[in-house]
Amino acid sequence: LPQRIIVGVIGSGEDARDEDLRLAAELGEGIAREGWVLLTGGRPVGVMQSAIHGAKRIAGSLTIGILPSSDGPAAGGTDIVIRTGLGEARNIINVLSSDLLIACGRWNAGTLSEVAFAIKTSKPLILLDPSPEAILFVPTIARNAIVVSSTDDAIEQARCLIEKLS
Amino acid sequence: LPQRIIVGVIGSGEDARDEDLRLAAELGEGIAREGWVLLTGGRPVGVMQSAIHGAKRIAGSLTIGILPSSDGPAAGGTDIVIRTGLGEARNIINVLSSDLLIACGRWNAGTLSEVAFAIKTSKPLILLDPSPEAILFVPTIARNAIVVSSTDDAIEQARCLIEKLS
Amino acid sequence: LPQRIIVGVIGSGEDARDEDLRLAAELGEGIAREGWVLLTGGRPVGVMQSAIHGAKRIAGSLTIGILPSSDGPAAGGTDIVIRTGLGEARNIINVLSSDLLIACGRWNAGTLSEVAFAIKTSKPLILLDPSPEAILFVPTIARNAIVVSSTDDAIEQARCLIEKLS
Amino acid sequence: LPQRIIVGVIGSGEDARDEDLRLAAELGEGIAREGWVLLTGGRPVGVMQSAIHGAKRIAGSLTIGILPSSDGPAAGGTDIVIRTGLGEARNIINVLSSDLLIACGRWNAGTLSEVAFAIKTSKPLILLDPSPEAILFVPTIARNAIVVSSTDDAIEQARCLIEKLS
Repeated sequence: LPQRIIVGVIGSGEDARDEDLRLAAELGEGIAREGWVLLTGGRPVGVMQSAIHGAKRIAGSLTIGILPSSDGPAAGGTDIVIRTGLGEARNIINVLSSDLLIACGRWNAGTLSEVAFAIKTSKPLILLDPSPEAILFVPTIARNAIVVSSTDDAIEQARCLIEKLS
Repeated sequence: LPQRIIVGVIGSGEDARDEDLRLAAELGEGIAREGWVLLTGGRPVGVMQSAIHGAKRIAGSLTIGILPSSDGPAAGGTDIVIRTGLGEARNIINVLSSDLLIACGRWNAGTLSEVAFAIKTSKPLILLDPSPEAILFVPTIARNAIVVSSTDDAIEQARCLIEKLS
Repeated sequence: LPQRIIVGVIGSGEDARDEDLRLAAELGEGIAREGWVLLTGGRPVGVMQSAIHGAKRIAGSLTIGILPSSDGPAAGGTDIVIRTGLGEARNIINVLSSDLLIACGRWNAGTLSEVAFAIKTSKPLILLDPSPEAILFVPTIARNAIVVSSTDDAIEQARCLIEKLS
Repeated sequence: LPQRIIVGVIGSGEDARDEDLRLAAELGEGIAREGWVLLTGGRPVGVMQSAIHGAKRIAGSLTIGILPSSDGPAAGGTDIVIRTGLGEARNIINVLSSDLLIACGRWNAGTLSEVAFAIKTSKPLILLDPSPEAILFVPTIARNAIVVSSTDDAIEQARCLIEKLS
């Protein structure tokens, strides 16, 4: 019985753009369709919530939320809620527990910390529709980031990267 | 789609007694048979490994391991591996993420820290076959611990406690 | 310029007994008089606060508080406030950062988690006036705990243990 | 007895440029001369080590290192060593425990995570000699970052920001 492949989706929360939410729902659905487990930061807002909504359109999907709080609400549709009580320190768990990370849309400071940890720990990292400034900046720090502009490309790149892992 | 019920099993690792391992396997199987998700500390030894082996005897069981390391091995049969890189600090996550905890057999220092966190966070806590000294000591700190001597009683008590939660 | 010796004092908070507070103040004063840095959990209550008050009676004393919150108040007299935002997970930092730990008076669940971590990480551990039940229980888990009944004995034992470290 | 002002210096480790190290030593010295406590990530390399060396040129300076490991070596000249065992998750502690942060020179992924956390927690943040790409990127995420190009300007800005805090 092999361990399940986990794909983490990171992105903005309360401050997400409509476009970020649309991409997140598509991503969540695509990840679930591939049979991968979806992992997010677990809060009921933004990219986290939309990705989970997308995944739950697929029968048999499995979703995990890693919550910063010890007792706050989880995103609707989260099957497995991991409560950390660690605040922002839980961001490293999102990264370490994912076989691959996809940053969805524009980033807030929390997303940036997760991108930083993904770079630090050499995790496969896909940037879906990042800002132009991020596209210029990230290569000054990272060698492991791939920029894509559509969810189809994100899933396709994820498939390649996951094949390489196994 | 409701969140899954998570039952955490805690206990000794390399230093577990044969009796602790036997109880852990029974517990894991009983937890999975109830349809609950089994959560452990995820390492491939002791009570953690035996509980997961027990759970995987049941078709459709789901097992989660919360690893202290960022890259160490997980117990065989762990479906979802959460990697924390936090060392012993991950013990609080085991506790907060479980709806109910069962301490299985005799404790080592790691188990004791999880028992302490379960008391601190007022989690329902079942002590299966603890030492006589623990039976005397725990009530000086806790009000939420129930002592049982068989896995059947542990599962029965867990069923009651989980009914009260929902 | 050598690293400073750090002695951690752990014990009850809001629920401390008057006797625990008295012992904590004596301990803090004794630690400061030896020229050691006093480390506590940093909150403005119980054994934490009393130990710091005791230490600040000595000119040139240095006190550190490791707070669980990201922005809560620190005990009065804390020179260096370390804010973790980690909740109870910060207890492992109290233990790892101390060269030696003294559990002062009766324990609550938080104290118990720190005692457990001290045992787990093989830190020198002195138990000052623990409960009779704790005296029976601890040896079933630990080999590194010394029981004393007065602050003079605690400081004397600490002196011996610290000499061995260097 | 008021709590001490803590200024955190963050930057590259093994991969720091000579110029980053030179700036770090100047910064550490400047911080100590102001009577502020210097906080770093505590490892004996890069910006962390150089800042501490700089601070220790000043009599009566106080330096704190927040180590990721539970037992690794600390930078020479670190007065107070806080051992976390949390790996990269300790970066949030560096940020939360500092009244003000100065990112010194070019960033690696660890620095980036600390910059992200400083933005997330609205800490006063000074960027000393960041890359041109960082100068373009940071304002897309943060409103609380000030860019300077000399250590004199960094200390001057720090003085203003700290006055506002009190």
